[in-house]
Amino acid sequence: MNRRSLLLCILLFFSTLQLLANGSQNRVINLADYLVKNGDRVDASFAVSQALADCKKNKAAKLIIPKGTYHFYPDMASEAYMFISNNDEGLKRIAFLIEGLSDFTVDGQGSTFIFHGYICPFIVKSSNKVSLKNFRIDWQRTFHSEAKIVNVYKDSLDISFSTKYPYAIKNDLLFFSDSSGISYPYKSLLEFDTQKRETAFKVKDYYAGPYAKAKRIDEATVRLFVPTISASRGNTMVFFPSDRLCPAITLSQTNGIKINDVSILHAGGMGVIAQMCSDIILRNVSVTPSPGRIVSTTADATHFVNCYGSIKIDSCLFENQGDDATNIHGIYTLIESQPDSKSIIVRLKHYQQYGQKLFIPGDSIEFVNRNSLVSYCYTRVDSVKPINKEFTQLFLSSPVPENSEGNAIASLKYPEVLISNCIIQNNRARGLLLGSRANITIRGNYFHTPGAAILFEGDVNYWFEQAGVRKVTITENRFENCNYGIWGHAIIQSASRIAEQFRNDSRYNQNIHVYNNTIKRFDPRIVNIYSVKGFKFFDNKIIDSKDYANINIGAEPFITAYCKGLEIEK
Amino acid sequence: MNRRSLLLCILLFFSTLQLLANGSQNRVINLADYLVKNGDRVDASFAVSQALADCKKNKAAKLIIPKGTYHFYPDMASEAYMFISNNDEGLKRIAFLIEGLSDFTVDGQGSTFIFHGYICPFIVKSSNKVSLKNFRIDWQRTFHSEAKIVNVYKDSLDISFSTKYPYAIKNDLLFFSDSSGISYPYKSLLEFDTQKRETAFKVKDYYAGPYAKAKRIDEATVRLFVPTISASRGNTMVFFPSDRLCPAITLSQTNGIKINDVSILHAGGMGVIAQMCSDIILRNVSVTPSPGRIVSTTADATHFVNCYGSIKIDSCLFENQGDDATNIHGIYTLIESQPDSKSIIVRLKHYQQYGQKLFIPGDSIEFVNRNSLVSYCYTRVDSVKPINKEFTQLFLSSPVPENSEGNAIASLKYPEVLISNCIIQNNRARGLLLGSRANITIRGNYFHTPGAAILFEGDVNYWFEQAGVRKVTITENRFENCNYGIWGHAIIQSASRIAEQFRNDSRYNQNIHVYNNTIKRFDPRIVNIYSVKGFKFFDNKIIDSKDYANINIGAEPFITAYCKGLEIEK
Repeated sequence: MNRRSLLLCILLFFSTLQLLANGSQNRVINLADYLVKNGDRVDASFAVSQALADCKKNKAAKLIIPKGTYHFYPDMASEAYMFISNNDEGLKRIAFLIEGLSDFTVDGQGSTFIFHGYICPFIVKSSNKVSLKNFRIDWQRTFHSEAKIVNVYKDSLDISFSTKYPYAIKNDLLFFSDSSGISYPYKSLLEFDTQKRETAFKVKDYYAGPYAKAKRIDEATVRLFVPTISASRGNTMVFFPSDRLCPAITLSQTNGIKINDVSILHAGGMGVIAQMCSDIILRNVSVTPSPGRIVSTTADATHFVNCYGSIKIDSCLFENQGDDATNIHGIYTLIESQPDSKSIIVRLKHYQQYGQKLFIPGDSIEFVNRNSLVSYCYTRVDSVKPINKEFTQLFLSSPVPENSEGNAIASLKYPEVLISNCIIQNNRARGLLLGSRANITIRGNYFHTPGAAILFEGDVNYWFEQAGVRKVTITENRFENCNYGIWGHAIIQSASRIAEQFRNDSRYNQNIHVYNNTIKRFDPRIVNIYSVKGFKFFDNKIIDSKDYANINIGAEPFITAYCKGLEIEK
Repeated sequence: MNRRSLLLCILLFFSTLQLLANGSQNRVINLADYLVKNGDRVDASFAVSQALADCKKNKAAKLIIPKGTYHFYPDMASEAYMFISNNDEGLKRIAFLIEGLSDFTVDGQGSTFIFHGYICPFIVKSSNKVSLKNFRIDWQRTFHSEAKIVNVYKDSLDISFSTKYPYAIKNDLLFFSDSSGISYPYKSLLEFDTQKRETAFKVKDYYAGPYAKAKRIDEATVRLFVPTISASRGNTMVFFPSDRLCPAITLSQTNGIKINDVSILHAGGMGVIAQMCSDIILRNVSVTPSPGRIVSTTADATHFVNCYGSIKIDSCLFENQGDDATNIHGIYTLIESQPDSKSIIVRLKHYQQYGQKLFIPGDSIEFVNRNSLVSYCYTRVDSVKPINKEFTQLFLSSPVPENSEGNAIASLKYPEVLISNCIIQNNRARGLLLGSRANITIRGNYFHTPGAAILFEGDVNYWFEQAGVRKVTITENRFENCNYGIWGHAIIQSASRIAEQFRNDSRYNQNIHVYNNTIKRFDPRIVNIYSVKGFKFFDNKIIDSKDYANINIGAEPFITAYCKGLEIEK
């Protein structure tokens, strides 16, 4: 070895040493090193934003949060303008803003995180392999409010609020606030059965907000005037918020996400919302209300938009949330105009889809008839020119049919789905909304939903959610007394908005196999589907129950229309 | 010349030729080449955004808009999240978004631009030498609403709206909208004298919004219930909007701005708002209402925040706007905490100042006592770490005094100001608010303001506007019957919020010279100042008038307190 080689060797040796040293020093960051008491309160928001900045700087593998209770205020939290699909956009304060990180874990070590006001607990964006684990998310003052129903009159109710739901009556109208005067506008009212801790039997939403007429009767009682309102004394009237501004965990454009052992006791929006993400695992995630409350999150427990790769949801509990347990779908973007044969201007129509960057160059897309939902052309995106949060111009790899205005396009990336060993119950609306064309397996779950337990939707005129399944296996589940609410016509149901005259041409959903399930029903209706090709229902155990009043006596258990390839073992 | 030199010469020659050719081809872009009819309407927004993109790409010198009337809708307009000082932040649709352009002119050639809904006409940001000229800005439906006062009762009025101000009464509350259903919330009510076309004599604002009680009396008449309201039959009641979301022209972080021959007939916010800009010229700019309306812009005609270099306003008309004619000031940022001797965390306190990036490395700053407004320390900013739109951490070039929390800092960059030959009249509130420490000249203007014509403000507890002048010349102006409203105590007034016990120590304003003006007054009060060093008042012509009722009979014309160096020729 000559002198030069020797020098090189020595240099290499020390560089390696330093690399190793840096690696071991900086791989784990502990929040304890960042917490500062500010006056009487410890606001963890600033500490977390500083710790996360250091995690990014040092390429740390893990942020550890020693077990404890932490309070998060919006004041000094991180900030980003976020478009969050099926929730509400805005300039958000964010406790954990994880952006541009790779191979990174947040370990709460069993901690409880209490949020105060309009702040988003977790937003993970443009990252790679992120794991969140071992913590509980709750709020000091919930975005919704719960009242005890004290008396019931024609078109009015007497209700009473605990001190957890501060309110005021101004101009004879009811408003909610918190101790710092922040307001909590509401939109809809829904009655819950206080004893059963689920939506009351067959009740409907009252869209009475953002200000319902009210009058103070005495210190504890408010008389609420809502035309046609009815309810049962002793039940709980829930005022759901106008907006979905603060979902608990938002995942955006991130590949490889694990959420383990996380409890979401509340959120002003959804529990977990993922958009344009791939390879997501939720294990032992619960969405469940805090003791003393009847509602958990104010919207869906989980929701997946334009995700791909795989989604695995295992051993989770989704209960008492303000909307569905899980919804997996793409987005239909409307074709507004066709400047030339190889370019289109498309428009996001639903305001809660605005700003979603659905397409990147190279993406395969389908053109879909707005009435039949039938795909009539396939091509690829060459380049993307954003106009604003609603409009985008796309340049395509091949000419597309003229007169496509009013029809829609959607991405052809779909996730494989496995939902297993979950409990889904007592929430408003439905259980699982399935809209991926990759394989879907629903196995070993328990359903007690007031609407359909499993729903196949998709439309190009209201929600603009791309759906349509190709292979779904529903097996070893227990469906127990579903449909005690008004959000469904059967336990397994299709409700794609396909115009009647196209239902025979459309095979929007295909190959749905339902077997080895237990179905306990007080309502005879089990299946209600149309425009399905390949539906098998066999080896299921059906038990009749009298646990709820059957208001559909004599109804047909299996309704199928415009279907092909049916095999139903009744 | 050798072969190599020859080749180089030839190359250089052809490059120059090409440069010249490109230059002449691309220096001017004409909007006519971009306009496309979309159904029944021509929406110029998309055309403008495409033309501006090409201007940027081709480094064009000019966008020409052939004389005509153009309609701008928000749908396909450009978009940006904008923090606009003293207006309201938000994700804005923008007709003319001029960003990152240099040596660029928009020439409207006498065109009228009609805006529809929530869209900002012009935002110029991060640019250099931009000229806007020859156009009129108006809206189809104004952000404010005007009603004729038909009858007056105790605590209520009967009012009537023309079809230009669509409204609805829901839940016994009054709401405004437009033909497409977009809502126009309101905050305050103010009465205007229909005949004189100015704010009615000594009327006050009624903060009755966002929903005042109302009842439909007949097809044309609404009874409005506002406690303590009074008004005069035949006058006009104006409902001012809750927010200032759409100022007409926003200038941000741009050096070298000329606005010539521009009429602003309306805006949902200010007429011209400039922040962190330098070298601004406004010539022949008018803020004046459209025929048939009594109000022009809903807030100040012009406003300048943390600008530097020079501001020249010449031959402008500012009338009937919802707030002051011109306000020139900096921003005081509150010191929230001091992590160490050379760093501070500062907080923007007024919500309409959020997001202002006031400091860049190298900026000189002052530390200011919150009660006395006395500067007690000077240093420089070494680096800036933004936390969110409210909080910023600054690292400083030298240690600063401890216990500075609660005091404020501000930038030491100020603009020279010349305001000449302008007409300022009939608006709500004041004329000129002057708060620059560079030379200020106010010459040859006409003032007929309901409040003070010239005001020196500044405070660290409500508006957080940094002010304090060092040399002001007020000469050759005509002040005609000012103070017919409630927004002042004299024609020339200081109103800095300096705590009483500090007024003798503070010399917040210095060297104000008032001479060769004509002052026509029905109210005796001419000057009311405190904490001023060097105030001269001489060779002014004072004319008494009986054009308005003098409700201040016997009041002292010159009130001075805690001043030094006074020379007042009464």
